[in-house]
Amino acid sequence: MIERLRNIDPLDLTAFTNGLKEEIVARVTDKISHLESSLAVAELTVALHYLLSTPKDLLIWDVGHQGYVHKALTGRLDALNTQRTKEGISGFLKRDESPYDFFGAGHASTSLSVLTGACIADAAAGRRRKRVAVIGDGSMTGGQSFEALNHLATTAGDALVILNDNDGSIDSTVGALHEYNSYGGYIQSLGWEYSYLEKGNDVLSLLESLKAVIDRGGKQLLHIRTSKPNLSKSKSYEPGTTFQWWAAEQMKKILKSNQQLRVFSPAMFASSGFGPLRDEFPEQFIDTGINEPHTATAAAGMAASGGRAWVHIYSTFLQRAMDQVIHDIALQNLPVIFLVDRAGLVGADGPTHHGVFDAGFLADVPNTTIWNPRNGDELQAMMVEAASIQDSLEGPLFIRYPKAKTACGTPEKFEPMKWMSQKESNSLLLSTGALSSHVESGVFDHLHLGQVKPLPENLPQLLKDYSNVLVVEESIGNGGLFGGLAGLVADKDLEVKLVKRKISDEFTNHGNRHELLKELGLIP
Amino acid sequence: MIERLRNIDPLDLTAFTNGLKEEIVARVTDKISHLESSLAVAELTVALHYLLSTPKDLLIWDVGHQGYVHKALTGRLDALNTQRTKEGISGFLKRDESPYDFFGAGHASTSLSVLTGACIADAAAGRRRKRVAVIGDGSMTGGQSFEALNHLATTAGDALVILNDNDGSIDSTVGALHEYNSYGGYIQSLGWEYSYLEKGNDVLSLLESLKAVIDRGGKQLLHIRTSKPNLSKSKSYEPGTTFQWWAAEQMKKILKSNQQLRVFSPAMFASSGFGPLRDEFPEQFIDTGINEPHTATAAAGMAASGGRAWVHIYSTFLQRAMDQVIHDIALQNLPVIFLVDRAGLVGADGPTHHGVFDAGFLADVPNTTIWNPRNGDELQAMMVEAASIQDSLEGPLFIRYPKAKTACGTPEKFEPMKWMSQKESNSLLLSTGALSSHVESGVFDHLHLGQVKPLPENLPQLLKDYSNVLVVEESIGNGGLFGGLAGLVADKDLEVKLVKRKISDEFTNHGNRHELLKELGLIP
Repeated sequence: MIERLRNIDPLDLTAFTNGLKEEIVARVTDKISHLESSLAVAELTVALHYLLSTPKDLLIWDVGHQGYVHKALTGRLDALNTQRTKEGISGFLKRDESPYDFFGAGHASTSLSVLTGACIADAAAGRRRKRVAVIGDGSMTGGQSFEALNHLATTAGDALVILNDNDGSIDSTVGALHEYNSYGGYIQSLGWEYSYLEKGNDVLSLLESLKAVIDRGGKQLLHIRTSKPNLSKSKSYEPGTTFQWWAAEQMKKILKSNQQLRVFSPAMFASSGFGPLRDEFPEQFIDTGINEPHTATAAAGMAASGGRAWVHIYSTFLQRAMDQVIHDIALQNLPVIFLVDRAGLVGADGPTHHGVFDAGFLADVPNTTIWNPRNGDELQAMMVEAASIQDSLEGPLFIRYPKAKTACGTPEKFEPMKWMSQKESNSLLLSTGALSSHVESGVFDHLHLGQVKPLPENLPQLLKDYSNVLVVEESIGNGGLFGGLAGLVADKDLEVKLVKRKISDEFTNHGNRHELLKELGLIP
Repeated sequence: MIERLRNIDPLDLTAFTNGLKEEIVARVTDKISHLESSLAVAELTVALHYLLSTPKDLLIWDVGHQGYVHKALTGRLDALNTQRTKEGISGFLKRDESPYDFFGAGHASTSLSVLTGACIADAAAGRRRKRVAVIGDGSMTGGQSFEALNHLATTAGDALVILNDNDGSIDSTVGALHEYNSYGGYIQSLGWEYSYLEKGNDVLSLLESLKAVIDRGGKQLLHIRTSKPNLSKSKSYEPGTTFQWWAAEQMKKILKSNQQLRVFSPAMFASSGFGPLRDEFPEQFIDTGINEPHTATAAAGMAASGGRAWVHIYSTFLQRAMDQVIHDIALQNLPVIFLVDRAGLVGADGPTHHGVFDAGFLADVPNTTIWNPRNGDELQAMMVEAASIQDSLEGPLFIRYPKAKTACGTPEKFEPMKWMSQKESNSLLLSTGALSSHVESGVFDHLHLGQVKPLPENLPQLLKDYSNVLVVEESIGNGGLFGGLAGLVADKDLEVKLVKRKISDEFTNHGNRHELLKELGLIP
């Protein structure tokens, strides 16, 4: 299709784009917000592929959730209806999917660093090509975009950045740059030339502006306004059925009982089911923008002032605040409570988003407490307990729950561990988190550990009754609960053989969560 | 002393400050660069404590390595000569050292996030106090400072930021903001009022400027110029004695043999012994500024372009690029080589800087290769091997070495493992990294694993000869080599008992590296 595109008369590009949009809408049924973002840049995408000689010239998309039109143009129109399903194409750009996907992404604010690396590589190799990155106004709140702009300005080579400003990313954009629309001054202070196009959805205006900035060369940022179509929003959680819903219900009670408590989030309130709650308690919700390091340290600053700070964050994004968890919270014994959402396999978003790393790295940080509820009732009991002990905590507490359904049950009190079945076996199944509700223990005894760090004090004594322990956990590698157990067995010289069922040392592709868990052998 | 300070006539403050500086210089013998940074802000520190009612009012220092005058004023003048030694005070600010140390730090660019959290806490509690943060021009290259400025501007409450601009931090400051001295436009674009004081080492001018910005209220940034005294620089590595020297020697050969290769570093070339090499090969060294996420992704962008990217980074700062390692490098199978310096206990810098986390978290990321040399010769062999296999790598390779002495030896070829002693014992000591040269194996057989991931293929077979394996490793928690072994034993159903000597689940204070290793039981 891209060859066809390049032979079209410019005056026919608008009709071409409109036709393409219709074809895309007809094929995409999943993840409406990505479709909206993609349609908002349909004209830009067409104009860029029309002007550039991709894939020889570089086109880098930030996050990549606005890449549907790009995918359609580069041989993947028909595959769009398989997108985000097990054997289908990815919802994001992916290097091994197409030579037109120069760089994959799923997390925000990386594109300008990639552009920097490409400029450096081209200078080193003496290679000439056009280099363009497209970044949204939401991604501009992430500090990595600043780091790249500030550094790249002083590096050799032409580079063009398109700032796609549509007043919102995953949630409404926040921060001074957006609020005061002061991108021009900002960009110029960082040594870039700045230009602006109001008609960012008009393909002929785009062609003209793009040609102009490409011809000027040097470091150019073109700020365009685009508008997103208003497709029906589908994001809501059916009452009583998901961890997300149970978390929001309990949060509501906690917010009411302590009006000085603040919940921080790096732009994910709306996606995570906390949107309605934020509307009800606007003072108590702090949306910092897409900037996880800042979010974590700001919560630490509040805690250091004696305030009650909670952080709502996805497991996959917590990876970006690892240093801040260690250096600003754990090392300083500060009582910050984290609701770690999407801890575990997330399904359709795939390998960029699976929350499979935090269980390992958090367990190896001193002063952390880690809880993994097996259902919504236990999640609520943990949140109640966390609120009641927050003042006496000496370090961060993490309550980790997956993006998953959970059946309604009966209210619980917090307990660090719970017997699921006892059959006087000499083999024990030890599980944690939502998997505890789904594994089949067969003839084994089955113990669920809601608290995986610190491990319950009586655990060594309890393990003496067993010769085999099978650890089942929704986390990658050798750390987390399995690592804790292995350490305990080694340190206490226990006579027990460990077996593990964890996610093996590979990235897991996208697909239905339940299917993936089965395929990985974590549930029967 | 602070009470005495507050009763001084303003006209006597210059003499007071000069006297204090002399007292400090007489006591500090270690870490000259921190002393320089501190003396450069002596007048500022005096003026701030004179005007503010600390500790009721907030004074937040970024990094804290410019805190010596602050320490002297707040009861720690005499303790300065114990600084950075085992029982002495810290080289950085530390919450448990003084109520005047509102927040500890050792990594750059966190102070403005802390200030944000304090503003939010004060608004929640209805508390009034002055809130001031001091940040250097080097720390302003870190994206977290941008994230905080952009967010805090739209948050309630007065806040004052002092930008201490002395043309350099840990190395010369880089980037457009510094090069074009465009801080004014930058700050104003983010919604802050900007003012400038050239005479940042004149205490009366400082008093006047500080009073003015405090009286104005709102979000104020005062940019001051200060100059550092030029104390004798002591940073250099004696030829042939340290891992750092051996790394630089080998890097030189690799740079010569491949002129398109680029080495990236987030501002640490000078501190790490790479300074002279950078002067010799200026085209091939890319100092990005203090911005680890950008550094890692820029290297990924170069690799995606087919270029050869190496990253030199401290273990403790690699914590800040964890997500980028996973999402931008490992997931995309990109061949980036990391020289992970300061992997292990660093000694005098203490808990903010010990490189004890990366071994655990890197091991649990798919597609990683991890090498820990036992001495300078093996380090060089690994660098040669890395350079020769880089084009065929499908993921990042990490060569991790400590800040430590290493004896001269004889050139080696790369091997994933090496027998240190074989005594036909049924017990095996398995160690990795520099510790392998220092542990005593007694009656045990002793195997050094230079490569800890992937584990050597013949390891399961080899372990069948042993009933006990003692794993010795300079890393915290249960991951890393120990985790890999525990996973192997579980997955392969091996009949072997593991014992471990690692850093236990606590933060390790500052002190002499050798003493700390002994105290932790890692060396005899």
